[in-house]
Amino acid sequence: MVRGRVLNGMRPTSKLHLGNYLGSVVNMVKLQEEYECFYTIVDWHALTTGYEDTAQLQENILDIALDWLSAGVDPEKCVVFVQSHVKEHAELHLLLSMFTPLGWLERVPTYKEQLRELKDRNIHTYGFLGYPLLMAADILAYKADTVPVGEDQLPHLELSREVVRRFNHLFQPVFPEPQAKLTRVPMLPGIDGRKMSKSYGNHIPMSAGPNTIREKVQLMVTDPARVKKTDPGHPEVCTVAAFYKVFLPEGVDEVFAQCRAGSIGCVACKEQLMDLIIERMAPIYKRRSELEKEPDTIRDILKKGAERAREVAATTLDEVRRAMNV
Amino acid sequence: MVRGRVLNGMRPTSKLHLGNYLGSVVNMVKLQEEYECFYTIVDWHALTTGYEDTAQLQENILDIALDWLSAGVDPEKCVVFVQSHVKEHAELHLLLSMFTPLGWLERVPTYKEQLRELKDRNIHTYGFLGYPLLMAADILAYKADTVPVGEDQLPHLELSREVVRRFNHLFQPVFPEPQAKLTRVPMLPGIDGRKMSKSYGNHIPMSAGPNTIREKVQLMVTDPARVKKTDPGHPEVCTVAAFYKVFLPEGVDEVFAQCRAGSIGCVACKEQLMDLIIERMAPIYKRRSELEKEPDTIRDILKKGAERAREVAATTLDEVRRAMNV
Repeated sequence: MVRGRVLNGMRPTSKLHLGNYLGSVVNMVKLQEEYECFYTIVDWHALTTGYEDTAQLQENILDIALDWLSAGVDPEKCVVFVQSHVKEHAELHLLLSMFTPLGWLERVPTYKEQLRELKDRNIHTYGFLGYPLLMAADILAYKADTVPVGEDQLPHLELSREVVRRFNHLFQPVFPEPQAKLTRVPMLPGIDGRKMSKSYGNHIPMSAGPNTIREKVQLMVTDPARVKKTDPGHPEVCTVAAFYKVFLPEGVDEVFAQCRAGSIGCVACKEQLMDLIIERMAPIYKRRSELEKEPDTIRDILKKGAERAREVAATTLDEVRRAMNV
Repeated sequence: MVRGRVLNGMRPTSKLHLGNYLGSVVNMVKLQEEYECFYTIVDWHALTTGYEDTAQLQENILDIALDWLSAGVDPEKCVVFVQSHVKEHAELHLLLSMFTPLGWLERVPTYKEQLRELKDRNIHTYGFLGYPLLMAADILAYKADTVPVGEDQLPHLELSREVVRRFNHLFQPVFPEPQAKLTRVPMLPGIDGRKMSKSYGNHIPMSAGPNTIREKVQLMVTDPARVKKTDPGHPEVCTVAAFYKVFLPEGVDEVFAQCRAGSIGCVACKEQLMDLIIERMAPIYKRRSELEKEPDTIRDILKKGAERAREVAATTLDEVRRAMNV
């Protein structure tokens, strides 16, 4: 393998928002030029926390595929598929479970954290405890050597690496140790200044059209100390300013200076930001509007992707079975 | 479904012995006449406790198949297959894991017991904790309503029933609650009087020929208080006597009377038992000797069995996926 191989998975728990786009999808579009990329919509993972309500699951899967494809993820350049279409993930998960100490899973930092955070859901389940192992199976089924992760995902990747070492030691050296590719995620808050999240209702959907974008930007929280346009503003406490950093990095100093000098008002400042976001997202919005009309095309892309993924995963599983004598 | 459906699984951890034959295989041969039977060699289960040494696994699988077929398990009357050949078991196990509380698995009585008993093996693993759930998947993949179990397996079956109730409640009523069919297992000790077990080295293999049977019976522990033939014997403490109960139930009273009267010596008594066991096992031994020469026939039977099993399991999985929207 000359180019490295990337595995990236995303849970279909809702449509993507601008934070997901900038933090992850932009990166996927870049990586497909340099790596052999496997991009998977991990619907089984969505069940680990969301088994009690799966009514939206199929719609969410299609939505994420739409979001990816309209942003430029190109099925000619990478493999796009749904996790549950490639049964090898389940078999590998089961095989890895045989020699993975319970303690490794119990000690994953996010495990206890999420049990606390999602205490309204009943996730004291066997499947939820095992989800980092399912992630390991996702990665290892393709012998991916490169996994784009945020800082918070590093413990999961470390678990995958431990599983690899244990497998290679117990049986045969089948797997490479996957390496983390830390992605620098631009800080994009929600419109209320908190972390952007669908559950807070403060997000801007990636699929938002001009009207929604205008509406959302209009609602953005600005410097509360600034009453009149001529009052000096404080960009460091302004949500709009945080968006400028991302959508106009080269001009941000000038805008901030105008704000501090009281020479641009919040209304004008927001209007300029609307245009920036609308312009940046316009080609994606346009492609999405077209693709939306062809759900069968999307399904076909996912089907073909699953076939290509399955070929690779099946080869890996053959090796795994031989190594384990099963 | 007019006839009930039976699922019976056996771990390929070693060749079967006479205790397994009388306790389980005889029953399988009977059940295939009355039920639609799925008989599976559960190699994934063997990994839960035996992942560290799998060198014998494939041989053990073939051996169990040989033991079954030579005893009269008939692939025309039932479905004989290897668990890992039907990937649906892994997928269903994963799907069931999503809503199965950890506590249900931690509370299975055999779990902590086996952790203690097998403390020389490293089985504090995710897979070992999950094995009763894998058993549930084995049963539910075929919607089996009848599961032959010994007393000690009842908690496992109860877990399967709880999983069924939770699935049917959360999603759709897909599964019947499997019922236990308690099998009366004749008490057959090992040749040293303890429980017959390969790990004690006190077993008589099901595949033993006349010479081995003679040898083993000769080694059997008898009443230690009886030195001369004319001493009165005590069948209740004699291993040979326990075998008479099983292999000559209709004549056991007479033999015991002779023993107590000191009119039959241990040597003659053992020789008569050898003949009884050899005679009973002769047709099985003969069939086994023939089948042993045709491993490809066995493999073919297992392959065809897996195809038939997969058809049924695939239909169930379709229903499960629809019910869970995945």
